[in-house]
Amino acid sequence: LRAFGSDTRLPTVALVVDLLRERGAVSRVELAEATGLTRATMTNAVRRLISLGFVREVGTARSQRGTPRRLLELQPDACHMVGLQFDRFRGVGVIVDLAGRIAARRELPVVGERRPDEVVPELAAAVDEMIAASAVARGDIRGIGLATYGPQDRDAGVLLTPQPTSEWQGYPLAAALAESTGLRVAIENDATAAGIGAQHLGAAPSSFAVVYMSGGIGGGLIIDGHPYRGAASNGLELGHISVDPSGPVCDCGNRGCLDNVASPVAVSSLARRTSLAARLGLGADPLEGFDLLARAAAEGDSEAAELIEASVQHLAAATVTLVNLLDVSSVVLAGSAFTESGGRYRDAAQEVLDRSVFMRHVHSVSVELAGDVAHAAAVGAAMVVLRNLLESPNIGDRSARGR
Amino acid sequence: LRAFGSDTRLPTVALVVDLLRERGAVSRVELAEATGLTRATMTNAVRRLISLGFVREVGTARSQRGTPRRLLELQPDACHMVGLQFDRFRGVGVIVDLAGRIAARRELPVVGERRPDEVVPELAAAVDEMIAASAVARGDIRGIGLATYGPQDRDAGVLLTPQPTSEWQGYPLAAALAESTGLRVAIENDATAAGIGAQHLGAAPSSFAVVYMSGGIGGGLIIDGHPYRGAASNGLELGHISVDPSGPVCDCGNRGCLDNVASPVAVSSLARRTSLAARLGLGADPLEGFDLLARAAAEGDSEAAELIEASVQHLAAATVTLVNLLDVSSVVLAGSAFTESGGRYRDAAQEVLDRSVFMRHVHSVSVELAGDVAHAAAVGAAMVVLRNLLESPNIGDRSARGR
Repeated sequence: LRAFGSDTRLPTVALVVDLLRERGAVSRVELAEATGLTRATMTNAVRRLISLGFVREVGTARSQRGTPRRLLELQPDACHMVGLQFDRFRGVGVIVDLAGRIAARRELPVVGERRPDEVVPELAAAVDEMIAASAVARGDIRGIGLATYGPQDRDAGVLLTPQPTSEWQGYPLAAALAESTGLRVAIENDATAAGIGAQHLGAAPSSFAVVYMSGGIGGGLIIDGHPYRGAASNGLELGHISVDPSGPVCDCGNRGCLDNVASPVAVSSLARRTSLAARLGLGADPLEGFDLLARAAAEGDSEAAELIEASVQHLAAATVTLVNLLDVSSVVLAGSAFTESGGRYRDAAQEVLDRSVFMRHVHSVSVELAGDVAHAAAVGAAMVVLRNLLESPNIGDRSARGR
Repeated sequence: LRAFGSDTRLPTVALVVDLLRERGAVSRVELAEATGLTRATMTNAVRRLISLGFVREVGTARSQRGTPRRLLELQPDACHMVGLQFDRFRGVGVIVDLAGRIAARRELPVVGERRPDEVVPELAAAVDEMIAASAVARGDIRGIGLATYGPQDRDAGVLLTPQPTSEWQGYPLAAALAESTGLRVAIENDATAAGIGAQHLGAAPSSFAVVYMSGGIGGGLIIDGHPYRGAASNGLELGHISVDPSGPVCDCGNRGCLDNVASPVAVSSLARRTSLAARLGLGADPLEGFDLLARAAAEGDSEAAELIEASVQHLAAATVTLVNLLDVSSVVLAGSAFTESGGRYRDAAQEVLDRSVFMRHVHSVSVELAGDVAHAAAVGAAMVVLRNLLESPNIGDRSARGR
C-alpha cells in the first residue's frame, strides 16, 4: 500500500507546465513569483523543459524596471499521451496534447465478461489504430493512462478485484498492455481520473468531489489540484455507502448500497422486469437501456420517469452525505451515464444540497457536469501519464521516453 | 473562508519538535536525515529552539566516522499550553506541556442555555484557578486552545452557529476569552482537536478518521498528521449524514441524521419517555443519563440495552460510510460519551467494519478508543496553540509570548 493522503509538492517542472497552461506567455520572473521558488530553481526547470521542446521562448515583454523579460510559452504539440477508460460496459480512448486538448478519440471494444488476455490485445490494437488515424507521430506518444474501476494497486499496475471475471484479479494489466503496445502504461481509478480530466475540460475549481457514474457509481476527491488517495490509493467508494439501511445485503458486505439502487446497471435491471422492457426494446447493455429510459422519462413516460427519479433522488441523497463529510464547495458529475440524463441528476442534486447541506449557511455548494462527461476519465488518465513524466527525476533525459 | 484542504508543509521548527518528541535524544545530522532538510536549515531551526529553551544539548554520541555528534533533547517543561473543550453539556480543561503530557486537569462550568458573556468570565476564572493550582508558572503558559462544536470561523475566532443561544453566533469568543485571561486564544473544531489530541495520548497512527461523541456526534480526519479542513475549516459533519432516509427532517435540512437517532442527547430523550426515566432516575443532563443507560444496559437491563444498541448500530453503520468514503485504515473514537460505553461502541463498529467495508480484502480497518476519550479534544486544542507558536515566523522573538 502506498503512503496515505493526497499527493503533495509538485516538482517544479510540473508546476511550470501547469502555470504555462493556465496563463499563456509568462516570463521566468513571473513564474518564480507565482510559485514562490527561487529564480535559480525556476531557470533550471525552464532549461529542462526547453531541452525537451515542451517550452519555447516567444519574445520579450518590458518589465517595470525597463529590463526586457523573455516570455515562455507551452508547445502543446511537443508531447501527446493516450488515455483509455473502460469498464465492463463501455470504453473510450483519447489522444491528449501537453495542453490537455483532445487530439483524437474513439470507442473501445466492449469487455463484457471476457478474460483480460482476450481484451488486452484488442485494447492495444485500438490504441494502434487511434494513433495511426491521428495526426500524431507514434514517437511523440509518451505513454498510456488507463482509467478503470478499483480497488487497484496503482504501483503494481494490477486490479485487486475479480471483476468482471476472476482472471482480472491480480492480472498484470499495465505490464501486459505495455508489452503489447511498446508504451509505458499507468493505471488510475476512473472516478479520480475523471476529476483530473474535469480540470482540463472545463471550469472545475481546484478542490471538488467527483461523482462518477458509468455502469456503476464511484467517487473521487481533488484537493488543491491533487487526488486524495486514502489508504489504498483508490477513489471514494461512493457506490457502496448505504442509502437504505433496510435494503438488501450487497456483495460488498454492506446493506442498501447506492450502487444497487441507483446505478444504470440496477435501474436497467429493474426496468427489464416491467413492461418497459418490451415497450422501449431494452437489450442487455445496461448503459444503452439506461439512456433509453432517461429519454423516455424526459418525454413523459411515467413508468420510466419513476425509475429514473428514484435513482436521481438516491444519488442526490448520497451527494449530501459526501458533501457533509468532506465539506467541499463543489461537486462535479462525470461518466458516460450522465451523457443523456446529466442535467436532471445535476439539477436534482443541486436542489437537495441547497436545502440540506449542513454548511449551506456558511458557504454554497455547486454541482456541475464535467466538460465532457463521457471522456473526462480518459483525458484524466492521459494527464496522469504527463504528470508521471514531469515528476520523474530524469525528465530531461531522452532515454526516459517510451520505447 | 480559508484555503481548502489539509495543512501542509510543517515549518522546520515544528518538525524538529515533533521528531524530538517521538525519538528522544537525536543529533542534528539525524534530524536533517529524517526530514530531508539541509544541515544548514536544521542548524538554524535548532538554534532558535535552543534560544527559546525548548531544546537542550544533552551530551554526545559517536558517529560511524568517529566524529562525536551532540545530542539534542526536548525540554518538556519549557512551555505549557491550556486546552479547553466545552459544549452545552460538558467542559474540561487541561494544562499540557511541550511533550503533550497533561500537567493539570479540571472540569469546567456547564454552559447550558446561557449566553456567552455570562460563560466567558467563568471559563477565564476556571483557567486562572487551574493555573494557580498547578505547578506551572503563569508566565510559562503560551496560550489557550478552545475546542468546541462547529461551524466555526477559526481565523476570526467566532462560532457560525446560534447554538446554544442566538448570542453565540458571531460572538467574538476567542477575543473575549483572550481579553479576560491575558492569553492568546485559538479555537478549533472539537472532533478535529480530539484527533490531534489522540496522537499525543496514545498510539494513534499518522492518518485516521475521528468519531467524536459528546452530547452530539462529530467527525474529523487526520491525514499524515495534519487535520483535513474542507472548504470552511471545520470537521466532518458525521452527525448530519443520513442513516435513515425515511427518518424525520432534521434542523439541518437533511433527513434521518445520525445525530437524531444515535447521540446521547437523542438516546436520553427517548429514554425519558419510557419507564427507564423513573427506574434509573434520569435527570436533565443527557450525558449523565446516557452513562446511566449504558451502565444499566451492561448490567442486563433489556430496555436500556435496546436503546443503547440502536445507537451503537447506527454509529457503526455511519462509520462504514465514513470508511468507505475516506478509505482510512484506522478510526479513533473520542469524546466524553465514550467514557462509560466506549468499549461496546468500539467492538460493534469493529465487527460491522470487518464484514462490510468495501476495501476489507485490500487492507484491514481498526477501531480504537483515544487514550483518554474525555480529555482528547482539550489536549488537542492545547497542541494547536503549540503548533501555532512553532509556525509563527517570529518564534524566536520573546515578544511573541503571551502577555
